[in-house]
Amino acid sequence: MAGTAGQVIRCKAAVSWEAGKPLVMEEVEVAPPQAMEVRIKILFTSLCHTDVYFWEAKVSTFAFFLTWIVESVGEGVTELQPGDHVLPVFTGECKECPHCKSEESNMCDLLRINTDRGVMLNDNKSRFSINGKPIYHFVGTSTFSEYTVVHVGCVAKINPAAPLDKVCVLSCGISTGLGATLNVAKPKKGQSVAIFGLGAVGLAAAEGARMSGASRIIGIDLNPNRFDEAKKFGVTEFVNPKDHSKPVQEVIAEMTNGGVDRSVECTGNINAMISAFECVHDGWGVAVLVGVPNKDDAFKTHPMNLLNERTLKGTFFGNFKPRTDLPSVVEKYMNKELELEKFITHEVPFSEINKAFDYMLQGAGLRCLIRMGE
Amino acid sequence: MAGTAGQVIRCKAAVSWEAGKPLVMEEVEVAPPQAMEVRIKILFTSLCHTDVYFWEAKVSTFAFFLTWIVESVGEGVTELQPGDHVLPVFTGECKECPHCKSEESNMCDLLRINTDRGVMLNDNKSRFSINGKPIYHFVGTSTFSEYTVVHVGCVAKINPAAPLDKVCVLSCGISTGLGATLNVAKPKKGQSVAIFGLGAVGLAAAEGARMSGASRIIGIDLNPNRFDEAKKFGVTEFVNPKDHSKPVQEVIAEMTNGGVDRSVECTGNINAMISAFECVHDGWGVAVLVGVPNKDDAFKTHPMNLLNERTLKGTFFGNFKPRTDLPSVVEKYMNKELELEKFITHEVPFSEINKAFDYMLQGAGLRCLIRMGE
Repeated sequence: MAGTAGQVIRCKAAVSWEAGKPLVMEEVEVAPPQAMEVRIKILFTSLCHTDVYFWEAKVSTFAFFLTWIVESVGEGVTELQPGDHVLPVFTGECKECPHCKSEESNMCDLLRINTDRGVMLNDNKSRFSINGKPIYHFVGTSTFSEYTVVHVGCVAKINPAAPLDKVCVLSCGISTGLGATLNVAKPKKGQSVAIFGLGAVGLAAAEGARMSGASRIIGIDLNPNRFDEAKKFGVTEFVNPKDHSKPVQEVIAEMTNGGVDRSVECTGNINAMISAFECVHDGWGVAVLVGVPNKDDAFKTHPMNLLNERTLKGTFFGNFKPRTDLPSVVEKYMNKELELEKFITHEVPFSEINKAFDYMLQGAGLRCLIRMGE
Repeated sequence: MAGTAGQVIRCKAAVSWEAGKPLVMEEVEVAPPQAMEVRIKILFTSLCHTDVYFWEAKVSTFAFFLTWIVESVGEGVTELQPGDHVLPVFTGECKECPHCKSEESNMCDLLRINTDRGVMLNDNKSRFSINGKPIYHFVGTSTFSEYTVVHVGCVAKINPAAPLDKVCVLSCGISTGLGATLNVAKPKKGQSVAIFGLGAVGLAAAEGARMSGASRIIGIDLNPNRFDEAKKFGVTEFVNPKDHSKPVQEVIAEMTNGGVDRSVECTGNINAMISAFECVHDGWGVAVLVGVPNKDDAFKTHPMNLLNERTLKGTFFGNFKPRTDLPSVVEKYMNKELELEKFITHEVPFSEINKAFDYMLQGAGLRCLIRMGE
């Protein structure tokens, strides 16, 4: 691959020219990486609800999430070299700011997700163009292209033996749900866990509860068809709020002698967030919010629910620091502690990327792998 | 003291016959302790806002908080014997229920504070009477009497060398504030801490921050006169919300480059609770609610404040398990890590107990020691 270092690479990319319209396969130019940047050859990618959300909402040129091999590195990049296997992530880790230096945060000041910035930090320009006309990046990764350029802080170097067509799902929602349970809710062996929302993120949260040795994993969803799939992820009981006349937090408290030990909310619905908090046991219950709320939502509860020693926390990307923590998540997959195959329910070649959007819009399956370089 | 074991003791007690009216000194009969009960000779007591609150609100016969020597023990009590020095606490620890067995809770199912129960659990009767007419207990301790009977689960056995006229303040609000910081907010050395409300509980929270090695302790109170006193407890900066046109959480965020590391709310005012939460730094900030809210209050915030990795917790009695943890708090005083003298600003003999109520109502000083057995 070293033959292309320092040169513009021409390759295929799926470009979103118009909000909500199918992506169009184009030939693009990808400029060489500048200081603290890495150019990567993408082998597999996938998409997340966030891709669909932004694709529907505005013209963003590329979307995220994938696995990859480093093609070349820019000035100042010492920890990566051509040929390394990496996971690019939509949020980064500069290792220098107060967040990166805190054990408790992964919200890097420099490289925190920014959905409005379509350019690289180094020169405020894009590395993508078509016939010289710039095409903008999306959330720091831009992976619907055969090659992309990212900041080195958004790239986790992983075990080269890890199968890239499996671990690629760790770039986004799967890590978010998994980390919400493993890093934030932290259930102890034998405890009960409620998971609100049984989409891919919620099932990843359930997978974390299964890995933690939870005795009961109660799944809550409005769609009863999701329960069968959820059993594969360790969900032991199912509650559909529509089946009950009382609030779901009361139903759960009755099922669990006062409340679950931990809950993880993965829907983004404000009422689910409140239920997820109020369904945990007094004294020791911990509720973790993962879902992204609407701009105007208000979280509202009686303060006695807090004074009775419940804890309420939120998390972003499952509190994983991308460069520091993701390599060890890949190792959990390698040693069979974490199961990733069950998240990948569909696969399409890059030329059929719009099918992946259709699956997501229809709610069909969990993750659709997009195989690059046919 | 063994000479009185098994017999009714006649002694003086301050009885609240009518809500909000001065307490009346009476001679009362104190029955011997029954199974799992302990009769205690009270040497020092004090009072808390909770006493005043209930005294104003309803006719409760006795109020709480004190130090003491065991006079006799009932059947089944093996860990205490006559002559032991103890701290009775308004909330108990049975050591058997799920809360007592959880490392994370101190909200004992059996002996959790119950302000409505004026009788002993063993036979649903009071151990106090005047000429045979029962006088009811208050929150499990009833210490405005020379002798009282309590459940063994509400009694912490402490170092007999500890001066009872100092450690008596650990029975209530001082432990609550101290534990809120030490056990729940857990600031790391060098971190910043905001304390909302600079009464005795808030100053005890500040004392916990000082003991933790906090670099900045920001006190927030509507009464600027409290700042001078607060400096003794380690408070380094003072903010009066009345001095600012913007919300106090914004003022604090500007003072601290984005927010404090920890906050502890000790007012019970719902707006202070919301400010205390919103003033902590994203990524790692932890807010702890201590103050008791009004029945109809609603805690309300935008869920993004949580998703940006802030933590919100409440605490009851500073998360201390009375029997397990209070002896070690007494040791912290004994080894001069914890300073208690500065909380005791007044002292009255038992016969002048109503003066102690006046001091509390006037907001004069912090704690008034009530010396029994003149």
